[in-house]
Amino acid sequence: MGNKPTGSVGLVKKQTVKLPLGEEGLSLRRGGSLPELTVAYETYGELSPEKDNAVYICTTLTSDAHVAGRHDETDDTPGWWDEMIGPGKGIDTDYYYVVCADILGGCQGTTGPCSIDPRTGKEYGSSFPAIALSDVVKAQRLLLQHLGVDRLAAVVGGSLGGMQALEWSIRYPDAVDRCICIASGTSLSAQALAFDAVARDAIVSDPHWTGGDYYDAASGPEWGLSHARKIGHITYLSPEIMQERFGRERHPERKDHAGDSLFQVESYLDHQGKKFVDRFDANSYLRITQAMDAFDLIEEFGSLEAAFDGVKAKFLVVALSSDWLFPPEQSVDLANALHRADKEVAFCTLEAPYGHDAFLVDISHLAETVRAFLPWVSGDDVADGGLDGISAEHRLIGNMIQPGANVLDLGCGEGLTLSFLEKEKGTIGFGVDIDLNHVIECIDKGHNVFQADLDDGLSAFADGSCDCAVLGSTLQVVRKPRAILREMLRVAREGIVTFPNFANWKNRLTLGLRGRMPQSDVLPHEWYNTPNIHLTTLKDFRELCDEEGIEILEVASVPSGSFIDKALVAIGLRNLGASHVLARLARK
Amino acid sequence: MGNKPTGSVGLVKKQTVKLPLGEEGLSLRRGGSLPELTVAYETYGELSPEKDNAVYICTTLTSDAHVAGRHDETDDTPGWWDEMIGPGKGIDTDYYYVVCADILGGCQGTTGPCSIDPRTGKEYGSSFPAIALSDVVKAQRLLLQHLGVDRLAAVVGGSLGGMQALEWSIRYPDAVDRCICIASGTSLSAQALAFDAVARDAIVSDPHWTGGDYYDAASGPEWGLSHARKIGHITYLSPEIMQERFGRERHPERKDHAGDSLFQVESYLDHQGKKFVDRFDANSYLRITQAMDAFDLIEEFGSLEAAFDGVKAKFLVVALSSDWLFPPEQSVDLANALHRADKEVAFCTLEAPYGHDAFLVDISHLAETVRAFLPWVSGDDVADGGLDGISAEHRLIGNMIQPGANVLDLGCGEGLTLSFLEKEKGTIGFGVDIDLNHVIECIDKGHNVFQADLDDGLSAFADGSCDCAVLGSTLQVVRKPRAILREMLRVAREGIVTFPNFANWKNRLTLGLRGRMPQSDVLPHEWYNTPNIHLTTLKDFRELCDEEGIEILEVASVPSGSFIDKALVAIGLRNLGASHVLARLARK
Repeated sequence: MGNKPTGSVGLVKKQTVKLPLGEEGLSLRRGGSLPELTVAYETYGELSPEKDNAVYICTTLTSDAHVAGRHDETDDTPGWWDEMIGPGKGIDTDYYYVVCADILGGCQGTTGPCSIDPRTGKEYGSSFPAIALSDVVKAQRLLLQHLGVDRLAAVVGGSLGGMQALEWSIRYPDAVDRCICIASGTSLSAQALAFDAVARDAIVSDPHWTGGDYYDAASGPEWGLSHARKIGHITYLSPEIMQERFGRERHPERKDHAGDSLFQVESYLDHQGKKFVDRFDANSYLRITQAMDAFDLIEEFGSLEAAFDGVKAKFLVVALSSDWLFPPEQSVDLANALHRADKEVAFCTLEAPYGHDAFLVDISHLAETVRAFLPWVSGDDVADGGLDGISAEHRLIGNMIQPGANVLDLGCGEGLTLSFLEKEKGTIGFGVDIDLNHVIECIDKGHNVFQADLDDGLSAFADGSCDCAVLGSTLQVVRKPRAILREMLRVAREGIVTFPNFANWKNRLTLGLRGRMPQSDVLPHEWYNTPNIHLTTLKDFRELCDEEGIEILEVASVPSGSFIDKALVAIGLRNLGASHVLARLARK
Repeated sequence: MGNKPTGSVGLVKKQTVKLPLGEEGLSLRRGGSLPELTVAYETYGELSPEKDNAVYICTTLTSDAHVAGRHDETDDTPGWWDEMIGPGKGIDTDYYYVVCADILGGCQGTTGPCSIDPRTGKEYGSSFPAIALSDVVKAQRLLLQHLGVDRLAAVVGGSLGGMQALEWSIRYPDAVDRCICIASGTSLSAQALAFDAVARDAIVSDPHWTGGDYYDAASGPEWGLSHARKIGHITYLSPEIMQERFGRERHPERKDHAGDSLFQVESYLDHQGKKFVDRFDANSYLRITQAMDAFDLIEEFGSLEAAFDGVKAKFLVVALSSDWLFPPEQSVDLANALHRADKEVAFCTLEAPYGHDAFLVDISHLAETVRAFLPWVSGDDVADGGLDGISAEHRLIGNMIQPGANVLDLGCGEGLTLSFLEKEKGTIGFGVDIDLNHVIECIDKGHNVFQADLDDGLSAFADGSCDCAVLGSTLQVVRKPRAILREMLRVAREGIVTFPNFANWKNRLTLGLRGRMPQSDVLPHEWYNTPNIHLTTLKDFRELCDEEGIEILEVASVPSGSFIDKALVAIGLRNLGASHVLARLARK
């Protein structure tokens, strides 16, 4: 985030606008229409004269348009994503014009079941139509057009907001430059559906729900809504954080129906339930969760690849490690599908012990990642600079690669090779690395990159999906070197591998004469802490390639090494001379 | 399980007995008493003349005494753990006399809230006192005494049943030989408490609950009870199995309040909820979950070690990999505490994708483990036999160990070293291994053993808790060899380590002259698939010991090897001659 101080967007105000609709009103995906559309929203920062700096924030299930800043001087609680949005923050209001609106079907200002139906002069209640997330983003699009914004620099959302962001990228491909989808997925899992169903059942079984027309009654389905919220809150926290925060402590005063002291966790859920009833409407909870449950890109488009076919945005997909409502695998599936559909995409998993809610409460890494992904403010380096550290190995690799090739860099580190190849050879690059900091660096450099463990295979990558895969100084650190070689040459026409040659004469002397495990410039670790767990020699490597039906098209020694190294290589004793080997491979 | 055919216990009958109580009735842990105690139960197999073969099965939250067999010829559904209990099965009724009773406070035959209070002639309802799990096992103890059983060969339970089994071992230490605790823990987690609290809230908020006195009313809190059951069922399945079974499929006919088709998972939960209402009583659900929630051995005894202090049983603790209601860590904590309290204990984690319910539905490994743990029927080998395969290395290790020593075998395999040392040196052994099949073999041989990954450290073992730790041919396969050496000499006074010596002359020649990665009898793998990821030489090992403040008390070469090996060792060139090194270590 650099050293720039971060700040607040200051005092903000929620605004309301009645948007012009045609005669047919706002027609809805699942049938029916709304005669009027009022939208409540907030904006921060300034829209640029080119109108190219707008970022739309999609709300979660129950959050409203008040996403940052404070409503007045005495306001104790800033907007719900104040940590993310503001001067110098992840979404920097010194650069971006940020817009966020209350969700369609909600109850906080935008038209929803508790709004007055102009045709009857009474609340919609049970007559409010079913909505889909495509309707939700349609309303957002109308708001943005009203604000003079035709094109978003980015649409950003977590959880349900991530689903809306995906809808944006699919429905309005020409209006979205970047799409950031956090702790979300392309549909809810069976378990998440189960929780939603049970929660809705509590609302509609509450005798005060009365079919949804309770606005005139003395009280609504408060018990049901509060119960639904309690179930929701269990799913928002990881079990670990729940244990840490509440454990098995009892509340000092509060008792349950049988006179037993409430557990603190029970008291916490009660509190959350009660607080929620004050600010949310049961019918909105029903409508929005139903829209969320029905959201399913595979069902709608037949496959995720088909769903993303026409999309033009560049994607950032972020998973949270301990999220069990939208488990990381769902983000992996999303990122993989985007890549298979040939879209630009970066993916990472943040260590976030807090659970699903982490994207709201534990956001330093998230803010850094988002900031790196957004253009213009990505860091101090200029995008195409930062090629310090280019080595002889990079140049050798560069010489082996065709201009304009599609390159997959396995173990891509901070993206130096990718940047170098892009600049020198005009390649289209994609990186894979296990380390989050490396991945953020790559995102900052503008690369498509997946955070992944190579030992889990390359299932994200289709057969023959790239021209060349590079595996630099990584073969010896993976658990299954043979598997990764096979995978490389499944996804790429050619592979370039570099590895330390254990048969270099210095290693032979160290073991042979001194009886010690070799250490050197290319093998700098002690035996007990080395990451190099599958060492090999050029000769052994050749034999494996032979067994595997892999042809070695080219071999080089890098760095060329000492005088003796060079001399040995020169007289053909490459296995003796090379301390570090580079080989270009292809299937026979 | 051998080749013996497994069968059913056949036709069985639930029996009911009114147990004699003193004048004060059954006094209860949380105050109050019950004037009468009726217990419904089933038994299978025959009680031996010595009355030493009784196994008590503790029920889960909602299961009843009908644990195996069928009630009549047309009965489609056998007892709830029929897969585990019967001739030739995990709990073999050819050997054991199995007893299971309905739980106190339940509603299926044993005294509970829906029983008639003899003092009023009406159902207890709201007047039924709060019960604790210690009351539950007290009632079971009275039943067993009535059946002439003073001592249990084993008490067995999963989930809530595992908690009862722990209560048995603590309350009646002289009455329990073995205790099997499956998918359970010493208290519920905060998350599990939260689910229970929300479920109970649904029951007591149901207008038909009427404070618990609903037995005369036209209907009871059926909605609330069914809702509670739905929540429960979500927690019984792993998210993966829920996805696999239901995914996002919709029910072809059933609709929700808004006319949308139900998701199959929703329909499944509905079905489970409805079915449950037919066989269970809401007040019982409240009383039993409250007893479960209150169960907390740390709260009661100050620490788990204190709780288990007087216990005499031998324990088997089994965790299920995908159980998120009683996550595996809880079983680990239980097993660790038993070991720290100096009890005999075996622990393993079964791969069980099904979730918490796996102990009921996916039990082949579980049955095998339970069968191995129970005496008499553990397998074909006789307990002290099976010493085939004893090698020179075993004998060398034996020579280094004091008679009667407390030995920890790290990477114990099938327990051969432990059996050998026990027989030859009268040691008290404890094994650790990562492989379930090895662990089951060790359990079968009667060893205390933990299934664990050495790379996770030895936190289960207290400083100086044993005389000698053995690490045989394992140093080179762990990810952190230095850490494991430190851990060994933290928990043990002395360590014995064996490892392949990479500096053996044959390896030197292979690398030095042939330029190939060495392979040999002690290093049989290819470089790309070897588990030996941290190879070392005797010389390097000596240096590490020196750095770490570890004294090498003794070194030997095993096996003594070829003529050249022996000759080299004889003239003092041990690093050149030894192909496999054995070293006895201690902190300086």
